[in-house]
Amino acid sequence: MSVGRVSLVGAGPGDPELWTLRALRRVEEADLVLYDALVDAEALRRLTRAQCFCVGKRAGRASVKQDTINRLMIRAARQGKRVVRLKGGDPFVFGRGAEEMLVLAHAGIAVEVVPGVTTAVAAPEAAGIPVTHRNMASGFLVVTGQTGEGLNSALAAVRPVGVTVVVMMGLASRDEIASGFIRQGWSPDTPAAIVCGASTREEWTWSGTLAELGSPAPPDGVPGVLVVGEVVSIGEALATANAGPAAADEVRYGRS
Amino acid sequence: MSVGRVSLVGAGPGDPELWTLRALRRVEEADLVLYDALVDAEALRRLTRAQCFCVGKRAGRASVKQDTINRLMIRAARQGKRVVRLKGGDPFVFGRGAEEMLVLAHAGIAVEVVPGVTTAVAAPEAAGIPVTHRNMASGFLVVTGQTGEGLNSALAAVRPVGVTVVVMMGLASRDEIASGFIRQGWSPDTPAAIVCGASTREEWTWSGTLAELGSPAPPDGVPGVLVVGEVVSIGEALATANAGPAAADEVRYGRS
Repeated sequence: MSVGRVSLVGAGPGDPELWTLRALRRVEEADLVLYDALVDAEALRRLTRAQCFCVGKRAGRASVKQDTINRLMIRAARQGKRVVRLKGGDPFVFGRGAEEMLVLAHAGIAVEVVPGVTTAVAAPEAAGIPVTHRNMASGFLVVTGQTGEGLNSALAAVRPVGVTVVVMMGLASRDEIASGFIRQGWSPDTPAAIVCGASTREEWTWSGTLAELGSPAPPDGVPGVLVVGEVVSIGEALATANAGPAAADEVRYGRS
Repeated sequence: MSVGRVSLVGAGPGDPELWTLRALRRVEEADLVLYDALVDAEALRRLTRAQCFCVGKRAGRASVKQDTINRLMIRAARQGKRVVRLKGGDPFVFGRGAEEMLVLAHAGIAVEVVPGVTTAVAAPEAAGIPVTHRNMASGFLVVTGQTGEGLNSALAAVRPVGVTVVVMMGLASRDEIASGFIRQGWSPDTPAAIVCGASTREEWTWSGTLAELGSPAPPDGVPGVLVVGEVVSIGEALATANAGPAAADEVRYGRS
């Protein structure tokens, strides 16, 4: 009897060209793929003959419960199937990947993790914003804006000096989040950016200040990250340099 | 006359299977590749007919000066060449990628950035350590241990609560770094890990506490990261679960 296994695979920020070679191989060889809503489903179905099920939230439907996902993975692996659990970004960055890995390991299922390009870095990068930059940001903090409490304790943990903060899943509550930063002592004039749908056709970028973070209207239904820190100005400097007369081509190339 | 261009490409933590599909395509199409010491040079030369030059530190030789790298890229692009600047991890995480991008944009050269799997996340992940975990770490901070001052200011920026810290390039000064953490109020008993050569044949992992961080002897000449925070215990729990009798295979699979 063949022995099944589960691969927890990161699919990167959105563009299937940002999958790793190993992610592609695991998907090609899979019998069953359980994928999150952030994954490009069309690309996925082109690349594999595996059964593919979306287990994330989409079009108003609730996501499949974590317990159900766990049971599906364990059952398929015990049937000898090669299972891929495909997640947006990296499986271990707010992806509950480690929780799933522990459940599988305790059930005696062979399990591996395949890292992905994390959206926490790639989304700012798509807007020309480096999370670190010499003499500007000697480190970066990644937090989630999803639960008020987690965010507040993470923000309370960081003093507003020389560190870039990337807030994931904080788009809807960006007003509240900006106030949280300012309450913690960050200047309202700190450069801030919003990047939605990084690396996809729906990519949308805004930059301004922390105080203005609530005013822009990002496109509906496209996930995004908030970036807070001086490094946002690098993205603006790059956009200006790229708009120069000698460089009409690079913008096009950069987006091809 | 053809117009050259430069792609700043992230090569991930080490294993060429963790390159992105776009990274592979850019390298295959390149005329000139300037790569850092952390990149797998053998794999690179198998994959492309481009001229390949190592511009990073290796075998005691100093790295090529940043000015020289910039001039090489600009000259080649002006000659119509497709240039790839291949960097370990992600180009915008302590990679000076944004500095190079600004220089190129100001010189009127078409330039793009191709994100990579950052070692900051993938190295802990290789040891089963998630940088975030529910009710344990609501965020993570990535800092460099290379310059005392940058590290100290970054550590001073973070209070020791509920956040994972990943220190890159801090292997040599791990004793000093551990003391820095403890001076900033972190308990000497905080779980801590060292992961060297993640995803390569030289992968080496140690875990213990902050107070013990100076005692292990990691292999010479293999780069590594330090991980500080409760999440280190997840890696230990996974190792224990994997060592169970029902799961002899997963360890092998995970490393295949």
